Amino acid sequence: MPRQITAFSNPLVKQVRLLRDKRHRREQGRFLAEGLRILTEAREAGRLPEHLFFAADSAAHPLVTALVAATEAAGGEAIETSADILSKLSGKDNPGSVVGVYREFALPLDALDRAAAPIWLVAERLRDPGNLGTILRTGDAVGAGGLILVDDCVDPFSVEAVRASMGALFTMPVARAAWDDFRAWLRSGPGQLVGLSLDTEHDYQAPRYQAPTFLLTGNEAQGMPDHIAAECDLLVKIPMLGKADSLNAAVATAVMAYEVLNQGRRAET
Amino acid sequence: MPRQITAFSNPLVKQVRLLRDKRHRREQGRFLAEGLRILTEAREAGRLPEHLFFAADSAAHPLVTALVAATEAAGGEAIETSADILSKLSGKDNPGSVVGVYREFALPLDALDRAAAPIWLVAERLRDPGNLGTILRTGDAVGAGGLILVDDCVDPFSVEAVRASMGALFTMPVARAAWDDFRAWLRSGPGQLVGLSLDTEHDYQAPRYQAPTFLLTGNEAQGMPDHIAAECDLLVKIPMLGKADSLNAAVATAVMAYEVLNQGRRAET
Repeated sequence: MPRQITAFSNPLVKQVRLLRDKRHRREQGRFLAEGLRILTEAREAGRLPEHLFFAADSAAHPLVTALVAATEAAGGEAIETSADILSKLSGKDNPGSVVGVYREFALPLDALDRAAAPIWLVAERLRDPGNLGTILRTGDAVGAGGLILVDDCVDPFSVEAVRASMGALFTMPVARAAWDDFRAWLRSGPGQLVGLSLDTEHDYQAPRYQAPTFLLTGNEAQGMPDHIAAECDLLVKIPMLGKADSLNAAVATAVMAYEVLNQGRRAET
Repeated sequence: MPRQITAFSNPLVKQVRLLRDKRHRREQGRFLAEGLRILTEAREAGRLPEHLFFAADSAAHPLVTALVAATEAAGGEAIETSADILSKLSGKDNPGSVVGVYREFALPLDALDRAAAPIWLVAERLRDPGNLGTILRTGDAVGAGGLILVDDCVDPFSVEAVRASMGALFTMPVARAAWDDFRAWLRSGPGQLVGLSLDTEHDYQAPRYQAPTFLLTGNEAQGMPDHIAAECDLLVKIPMLGKADSLNAAVATAVMAYEVLNQGRRAET
């Protein structure tokens, strides 16, 4: 039987609110996700919250019922609360009917099985949480093996990244590594490192990519530094016909990832 | 000689701040853009602000000097101010060195020349300003003729949309129209209306698209309504290999737009 929390001053509410801040996520090793669609995606991937907050007036919704039952069966706590408190927890005016508190779960590189997928996504010093979440969502769509975050990227467990991922944070393996460690791991097995760059004449549709392809996207403003570009097996660019000199990082990653996927689809037929 | 404003209580500062709100943009017919890169892009496209706020310590930067000179030559006013006031105007902690106030300039459909480009982007009830700006940025990159916003889309002149467009708002024609008006205009000349849909078996790489191709992207959560899907000459879907059932709307638009562009590139060779 879920307990009820109706007071903003409740200590758990205060503690959970702090998870919108990176420092507190790090200290608590936990993060927030919100919305029935994302939490259901998480449940189907076997990820259940330690605390599940749900709106009293949504308790009868079958997906809420399923989340409450699964959370309690896994030893977590379901908490009935008000729309105001859900809004306070998520920082959104319109938070949806559920907010969950999850344990963080980023993987070490050695836990990744590069043979498991033909495409892997790699981001280097990515700054925007929306871009990170969108790249995860795209990674899921193209059947990528996972996302590897190199050097100082934005936190994949930020509320904005989780939201933009639309649940893919729970289904896509995410690893974090310093560049030197990533390079060592990459070169310990097969894999083609393909960097998206503005400083090359190689059109992204010209090469035949070799699985596993590791697609590297650099920092939004600066791209990747020279020593990382030098390590790439290929540097390719997406044609730009207009006035601007670059695409949004998540868009460029997606255009590139679909090229690799489409080459694989043609090879199959 | 630029005047100086250093007080938050200055009436112009107060009036400009209001432009972060849609209602006030509508009333004043003006909007805000910020950052040297975006304002320079605007200047190169012949768009100059009515008011240009710049940080005192950036006055010697050649791009700032050029903006000040061009603004004053066009009859606008350049105003030297503090970083604090720039931050207040833009709502960002780190606003960059310039903020401009521009007149809104959306076009009527009849002002669009469909023969001018092989690709046109159409968005229907798009809700997210970041998606709208990102779609503009992609449109610039693929050489699209413009973006047509159908029915109740998010405001393209919102601070977030302008920011995400990275200047493409100033270089890409933008028109707004009700669906019936868009349909009437579309059918008054050549053009293939291609809708991105989750409810079709037609792979997006199967058709040979015919210029001008009008790529229609529906609402982020709901896609397009049935009566609009029924009007499309083609409905196509992008393959989704993972758990999620859809891509981010700006990503899907870009993957699709590059397919049309790439078909055109192959046809040329």
